Amino acid sequence: MSGSGEFDRIARHFAPLAAPEALGLLDDAAVITPKPDEDLVTTVDQMIESVHFLPEDRPDLVARKLLRRNLSDIAAMGARPLGYLLTTALRKDTEEGFLARFAEGLAEDQVQYGIGLFGGDSTSTPGPLSFSVTMFGAVPAGRAVRRAGARPGDLVIVTGTLGDAALGLAASRGRLDDPTGYLVQRRLLPEPPVGLPIVGFADAAIDISDGLLQDLGHVCRASGVAAEIEADRVPASAAALAAGDDWFETRLQGGDDYELVLAVPASAEASLRDAAGTVRLSVIGRFVEGAPSVTVRDASGQLVPIAGTGWRHF
Amino acid sequence: MSGSGEFDRIARHFAPLAAPEALGLLDDAAVITPKPDEDLVTTVDQMIESVHFLPEDRPDLVARKLLRRNLSDIAAMGARPLGYLLTTALRKDTEEGFLARFAEGLAEDQVQYGIGLFGGDSTSTPGPLSFSVTMFGAVPAGRAVRRAGARPGDLVIVTGTLGDAALGLAASRGRLDDPTGYLVQRRLLPEPPVGLPIVGFADAAIDISDGLLQDLGHVCRASGVAAEIEADRVPASAAALAAGDDWFETRLQGGDDYELVLAVPASAEASLRDAAGTVRLSVIGRFVEGAPSVTVRDASGQLVPIAGTGWRHF
Repeated sequence: MSGSGEFDRIARHFAPLAAPEALGLLDDAAVITPKPDEDLVTTVDQMIESVHFLPEDRPDLVARKLLRRNLSDIAAMGARPLGYLLTTALRKDTEEGFLARFAEGLAEDQVQYGIGLFGGDSTSTPGPLSFSVTMFGAVPAGRAVRRAGARPGDLVIVTGTLGDAALGLAASRGRLDDPTGYLVQRRLLPEPPVGLPIVGFADAAIDISDGLLQDLGHVCRASGVAAEIEADRVPASAAALAAGDDWFETRLQGGDDYELVLAVPASAEASLRDAAGTVRLSVIGRFVEGAPSVTVRDASGQLVPIAGTGWRHF
Repeated sequence: MSGSGEFDRIARHFAPLAAPEALGLLDDAAVITPKPDEDLVTTVDQMIESVHFLPEDRPDLVARKLLRRNLSDIAAMGARPLGYLLTTALRKDTEEGFLARFAEGLAEDQVQYGIGLFGGDSTSTPGPLSFSVTMFGAVPAGRAVRRAGARPGDLVIVTGTLGDAALGLAASRGRLDDPTGYLVQRRLLPEPPVGLPIVGFADAAIDISDGLLQDLGHVCRASGVAAEIEADRVPASAAALAAGDDWFETRLQGGDDYELVLAVPASAEASLRDAAGTVRLSVIGRFVEGAPSVTVRDASGQLVPIAGTGWRHF
């Protein structure tokens, strides 16, 4: 953490967000006191203007999406989120209002997810705006859920609905009607199932950031198993279904959803559902013995050919 | 952490750097198992092309300076470094050789400082190259050294020599002769006193990233004390002294040195020196009662007027 020239301007907006670990944002580093018998999990993600968000996107939603992309990784490990470090690189002409609204978004999600700002670094840049968040979470010692661990016979379970964010991007580009704005909203503000208690229920997990087929493939490769899923069981929102069959593959391959895909023993499904509360859980297939791969079938058991990149990621 | 399109290219260079906490760089987050009775300290810093480094700077030195800027913050808390998360934003035309040399620099300092790569995130950018490091360290529980804590009577002690990096920048810009290249080298590759055992010896500490006067001012403000320093006792390298008296204020106000300034009870000075090994320690003054301020005097006790920003930072 530093006292760059930007610091005073930043401090005005960010000081109210500080957690106790931030030491008032006045020290060289944050101090985290882990609970006994807990591991700390940590991850970092960045968002760059014109790469991960559009210049016209609302600053508060950019901030919240940045937090949520990281919260999704914490959720995929079975951890509860604690707080975060933030870096900002702003242009000299970035308006004060941008920062104020960005900080409002952070504040809103801090309340929603029970997290606080631990510290950060701010600088100026001659290039695109860029931000990163390092998120911290806690999980019972030795119990972090990994990508490796899926076993033949485990159910493939996904949270929420898939493909909405990718369809929302298509809608933002005018390639698709989105009369209710639901799909665009899902692109701008994902809702990762933070707090879903997967420790003790899931043998493996990953968050869906690069699309179901690719991320499920990562689990297969890490676990040394294959997965067979049934296309019609992949959960879709009403808005995604309304987009029509032309967008079927987007639901399987579109990224940016920040839902989870889990490997769950059949015997644990009911308990997981009890614990999941309102989080939607869909069984879409099973893990099976075999070389790492993902096979998609229709309801009659016929192989569904997947064009594009679905097969090539692993 | 993510599996962006850059991932495979990055993985080739960065996988060999991974610590056990990185879980093979194959999971959504790193897992850190803190030792009992230790706190975790964490800090983040970024470096952006043409802001924090020059396009012609050697990639391995950029990488090492990025690590060392963060290691300096960890050292200022009295912690021992553990490892780090890395973000990279590279242009599509960034050459493979750049990455390879950047990774070489990381590898070199990982060995020097006993740290490992915990994970990270990579993306492409249309703008300047940018990097960030989130560094982790461990310190005995409740013993992290803060900026607050300096007491009237404490000695003001600094490590190393000051002003070299700022003079090195002047030399790089052709404003100063640097016949041996020493000053430029100090700008490119700071040597923070990582491992200096300040816990138990120092009442307060900060790393000197923004210049002695400004950073010492931060300690005064956080601690509610004043500091009086003697200009002639501020340690300078032979190369800095050779630059002449015109550069006197640069030695007091130049940033980027990544040395430490400590508040040390007089009774602890000898023990600290014993523990410090080869780290150069210089007593440059004392903390005194009074409103937060930094006063500079010459050997005869006369006030030294400091132009520019020295007085205005707090």
